[in-house]
Amino acid sequence: MTPPFNARRIAVVAPHPDDEILGCGGTMARAAAAGAQVHVIVVTRGQPPLFEEALVRQIRAETLRAHAMIGVTDTQFLDFPAAGLDRVPRSELNHALSSALARIEPDLLLIPFIGDIHLDHQIVFNAALVHARPRSGNGPGCVMAYETLSETNWLAPGVTPAFIPNIFVDIGETLDRKIAAFRLFQTQVKPSPDERSLEAIRALATLRGATVHRHAAEAFVLVRQIH
Amino acid sequence: MTPPFNARRIAVVAPHPDDEILGCGGTMARAAAAGAQVHVIVVTRGQPPLFEEALVRQIRAETLRAHAMIGVTDTQFLDFPAAGLDRVPRSELNHALSSALARIEPDLLLIPFIGDIHLDHQIVFNAALVHARPRSGNGPGCVMAYETLSETNWLAPGVTPAFIPNIFVDIGETLDRKIAAFRLFQTQVKPSPDERSLEAIRALATLRGATVHRHAAEAFVLVRQIH
Amino acid sequence: MTPPFNARRIAVVAPHPDDEILGCGGTMARAAAAGAQVHVIVVTRGQPPLFEEALVRQIRAETLRAHAMIGVTDTQFLDFPAAGLDRVPRSELNHALSSALARIEPDLLLIPFIGDIHLDHQIVFNAALVHARPRSGNGPGCVMAYETLSETNWLAPGVTPAFIPNIFVDIGETLDRKIAAFRLFQTQVKPSPDERSLEAIRALATLRGATVHRHAAEAFVLVRQIH
Amino acid sequence: MTPPFNARRIAVVAPHPDDEILGCGGTMARAAAAGAQVHVIVVTRGQPPLFEEALVRQIRAETLRAHAMIGVTDTQFLDFPAAGLDRVPRSELNHALSSALARIEPDLLLIPFIGDIHLDHQIVFNAALVHARPRSGNGPGCVMAYETLSETNWLAPGVTPAFIPNIFVDIGETLDRKIAAFRLFQTQVKPSPDERSLEAIRALATLRGATVHRHAAEAFVLVRQIH
Amino acid sequence: MTPPFNARRIAVVAPHPDDEILGCGGTMARAAAAGAQVHVIVVTRGQPPLFEEALVRQIRAETLRAHAMIGVTDTQFLDFPAAGLDRVPRSELNHALSSALARIEPDLLLIPFIGDIHLDHQIVFNAALVHARPRSGNGPGCVMAYETLSETNWLAPGVTPAFIPNIFVDIGETLDRKIAAFRLFQTQVKPSPDERSLEAIRALATLRGATVHRHAAEAFVLVRQIH
Amino acid sequence: MTPPFNARRIAVVAPHPDDEILGCGGTMARAAAAGAQVHVIVVTRGQPPLFEEALVRQIRAETLRAHAMIGVTDTQFLDFPAAGLDRVPRSELNHALSSALARIEPDLLLIPFIGDIHLDHQIVFNAALVHARPRSGNGPGCVMAYETLSETNWLAPGVTPAFIPNIFVDIGETLDRKIAAFRLFQTQVKPSPDERSLEAIRALATLRGATVHRHAAEAFVLVRQIH
Repeated sequence: MTPPFNARRIAVVAPHPDDEILGCGGTMARAAAAGAQVHVIVVTRGQPPLFEEALVRQIRAETLRAHAMIGVTDTQFLDFPAAGLDRVPRSELNHALSSALARIEPDLLLIPFIGDIHLDHQIVFNAALVHARPRSGNGPGCVMAYETLSETNWLAPGVTPAFIPNIFVDIGETLDRKIAAFRLFQTQVKPSPDERSLEAIRALATLRGATVHRHAAEAFVLVRQIH
Repeated sequence: MTPPFNARRIAVVAPHPDDEILGCGGTMARAAAAGAQVHVIVVTRGQPPLFEEALVRQIRAETLRAHAMIGVTDTQFLDFPAAGLDRVPRSELNHALSSALARIEPDLLLIPFIGDIHLDHQIVFNAALVHARPRSGNGPGCVMAYETLSETNWLAPGVTPAFIPNIFVDIGETLDRKIAAFRLFQTQVKPSPDERSLEAIRALATLRGATVHRHAAEAFVLVRQIH
Repeated sequence: MTPPFNARRIAVVAPHPDDEILGCGGTMARAAAAGAQVHVIVVTRGQPPLFEEALVRQIRAETLRAHAMIGVTDTQFLDFPAAGLDRVPRSELNHALSSALARIEPDLLLIPFIGDIHLDHQIVFNAALVHARPRSGNGPGCVMAYETLSETNWLAPGVTPAFIPNIFVDIGETLDRKIAAFRLFQTQVKPSPDERSLEAIRALATLRGATVHRHAAEAFVLVRQIH
Repeated sequence: MTPPFNARRIAVVAPHPDDEILGCGGTMARAAAAGAQVHVIVVTRGQPPLFEEALVRQIRAETLRAHAMIGVTDTQFLDFPAAGLDRVPRSELNHALSSALARIEPDLLLIPFIGDIHLDHQIVFNAALVHARPRSGNGPGCVMAYETLSETNWLAPGVTPAFIPNIFVDIGETLDRKIAAFRLFQTQVKPSPDERSLEAIRALATLRGATVHRHAAEAFVLVRQIH
Repeated sequence: MTPPFNARRIAVVAPHPDDEILGCGGTMARAAAAGAQVHVIVVTRGQPPLFEEALVRQIRAETLRAHAMIGVTDTQFLDFPAAGLDRVPRSELNHALSSALARIEPDLLLIPFIGDIHLDHQIVFNAALVHARPRSGNGPGCVMAYETLSETNWLAPGVTPAFIPNIFVDIGETLDRKIAAFRLFQTQVKPSPDERSLEAIRALATLRGATVHRHAAEAFVLVRQIH
Repeated sequence: MTPPFNARRIAVVAPHPDDEILGCGGTMARAAAAGAQVHVIVVTRGQPPLFEEALVRQIRAETLRAHAMIGVTDTQFLDFPAAGLDRVPRSELNHALSSALARIEPDLLLIPFIGDIHLDHQIVFNAALVHARPRSGNGPGCVMAYETLSETNWLAPGVTPAFIPNIFVDIGETLDRKIAAFRLFQTQVKPSPDERSLEAIRALATLRGATVHRHAAEAFVLVRQIH
């Protein structure tokens, strides 16, 4: 088995824990199973008074369990304030994220989508692209954005940037693991018909798969690919 | 129960039989159950040598059975050549479609999407809009485009017009009927993971529903609404 | 007479006083006359040194008189700093606006447009959509953005999001009241050919009306509609 | 007085007679008054059975009277079938239009908009641009598209190309002449609230003017400008 | 050396001879040098009276010489009329192109861009995508559009689909061969500053390369990629 | 010789020193040589700890030498923090930039592009347009955005606003001066294949020129033009 994109070092940037599972849990699991390194950077941490400390601790534990199930190599927490990236000087965020990515030296970089409704997602998208500027020949050869249920479909259709995928990764063999990993987020999973339900996750994977005649897929918007 | 949009006379324009079921079968069923008139116009008919006559006859029979199950009031067949609308003088097509629509006088008009890969869909989209021009106060108060599995996702993402829905119709009570109606198209239904499979239809309805916290929905792109 | 959209509880979010009159004064007046509740939330208040207190007080008085003329049910002032929303933590703005909207429980939500040149408008657009996320089945069934003369046409055509309306509300019977209400803003109305002149307001209503064969209309960009 | 754009030779391409008056009658009148040559090319002619010969003759007479009022230098009629350009081999249309334009050698070229609902407009847009390809240093230095009431606002907002103007020509001194010229088209002018009414023409000019602080303007979408 | 995309069978669809060299001559040369099969399908042939037979024969000879220099495995000529694809029934074109592609079974498919000014390019783009529909699991895993100097920059910027590349192929080692191959088209190469000059080809390659920190590159717009 | 656009007073807004040379150095040089006034406003200044004071001083000296070579009339430094405009209250930035522009009273205004990857560029774009609102008849008659190598091509193709130029200025006679001026920025010029190399600058000018059959050009996206 070969990893998708023949990537050997993958970096996934998640604004908040669980975004990375919703967006590309199946792709990560497939890559890990094929021997690739999969690194996750979680940019924010819930902080009082917006988020209770006990809840935040539980989410972190869930995150690590989910990452273990997926086969994530390494998880970095940058601990910027969740729902507060607009108050962080952008140069500070850029520096921190860039330093974390530089340590990974990924050949594949997966980021959230700029059209997501959460401002944290929009800001992280931009910060990640600042790092990925091709100012040398050594940056990631492929950068693409994943979709996040409960974020990507809820901005303004036809007005703000739309998630129109052009890359599809077959996750037929790892969809169940993705769903199992998301189920570990007991604080985050919701009953149907919520977009954060297991039913919605499975429906999205089935639809994205059917679009390319696969049983399940994750879909992405390409930012840049260098061959 | 009230019909969606409070529409009393709905016209659905289908380039080929079954597009209307894939695109808005659940909406039609819900409207019919609520007492609205639902009229379908099928624009083309398969013709030799591209299509065998026996197959075409069977599809027509399947169409009428499916329409009966949905509760369609009336079905008109315009019998233009399938996969051949590019050879029909546009003024002829416009005249025929417009005459058919004028007999219906719909307050809600449902049409295929211009970004579908099939040229017939693109041409029908334009022809329907020619009829819907607000040249008097009596035209349809709402015009919107439906999505068709195996057509809408297969043109060029990010380049040709994207189907980014902004209207969602709850079909929680009629999804099963929609699927049953599509199943009647024995010539058209495909096994998973084809986009024309029952699994893909259900996944799409579940996803569109979850986006608006409903168990199932059909999604549309609004063209024009007058209040 | 029925209100537009059959809406019974309408919420209009205005970044600054008079945006709501320019954008949807005729729609509000028609809805109010038909018995709907019309709630307005004014997000900002001019503050020294950018704005003189006496002027701000006068504008507030003009606002309330205009709202009375339109038939507004209730006006809430959130009093964030005008021309200063970029300095307000977004989570704070989101919380305040969401709380105000939750008290109203609107079935129709009218908001400014993200492509307006004023940053306050862009920020309010996003904040309102955060509230409108369909995380339950009880949110507003329709969300749409209005156009504001002197804001919407002045960003970057073809580059930033364009106001391309797809919903038109007939205001033939309430255009005069809209204009009368705007005239009450003695501090804001400008002589022709300013975009904030009565002549421009009337021209826009005539044009939007003619597009759908009505004598006057207000136009909107649909964000999301659930049926 | 200087002509707009300092143009000395202007070519206006009209799919059907009166498009050029609706789209840029005021600009043509201003240019002619300032001493520029203004050439009009009318691409199509109504033909039986779609159009009655007597009517077509009347429209042609109206066209020439309107052009005289505007100050048009020269009018060429290419006589392709109206509402039938889809049946004309594109290379034939391109050749005819290109030959007509080559005789004029315009420095400013005004064409209809590709997002207009009439297929003839879309085809003429493309044909004109084929001629305008910068294959030498002698082509028109400026090419731009005009808007046509009853055509430009009636395709599919947000889906097909939108007319978002970025060039505004002050027609404060020639709006009355434009309206008088259009009034000469007794067969084409409609009562309000039709988009082809004098009221709609005036409203559009007022709105486009107000956007740039002028009493009246015509607006255009730039295709290409070379300095 | 590995071929770009690890592709083993590449199909390039060219509306007219030399489009494939301008668009992806360097990529083809690199792939061929790395052992991949490179198949070219030339869709049209110049026909009298638009094109003289002697010229057409010369171009064909130039094409084959250029393909030999690039290392093209096989060239198919479909011989549809150049500048006349609008007169070919679309189902006929689709069938012929699809048959040719089916014989190749490419894993990488390169096509012209839908926003090119030449109608033949637009039509070929659509026809190629019809073949590439993922109706089974065996289609090309990657489809992308190339840019053609003298075609891609000459439609309507900001209005018609723009070529905004997201895939870059390093052609540092094969740019000279690409230019040498194009030079063989003695009938087609033009002196500077024509877009079909050797100077323009080199400038484009240098710019596309610099964008990704390479000395030379060809750029593409991704249509669909399946992993 | 006449200046491009017949402009007599040109204002160029640069987020950081050298943006204005990369974006429109040739246009400025041509305008200056033709007798126009050319004013540059540099919005930011590097500040410790992000930037060393010695380096900042050197860049400033390089800037003034480059401006002298180009023929710039006057350079204003606003000294906001480089890479820190997100922390500056927007009303403060707007006020400072607007005051500087009001002193110039330009008839042509050149600004960076909103789709550039650097947040400073995006913010300056918006701030400049706030000043340029047509609230009187005296504002700049033409506003357009320039492209900046190492900024404009590095955001997210197809997702964020794309630089699709529609205005081309012939700089055949001033390209060498532009390159000489950029070479003065010893701290900023990079070796090939960096986008900030002299080779990339020349390639871009050659390509933009070839698009309009000129030996060299700078390209712009029009924001608004009033005639």
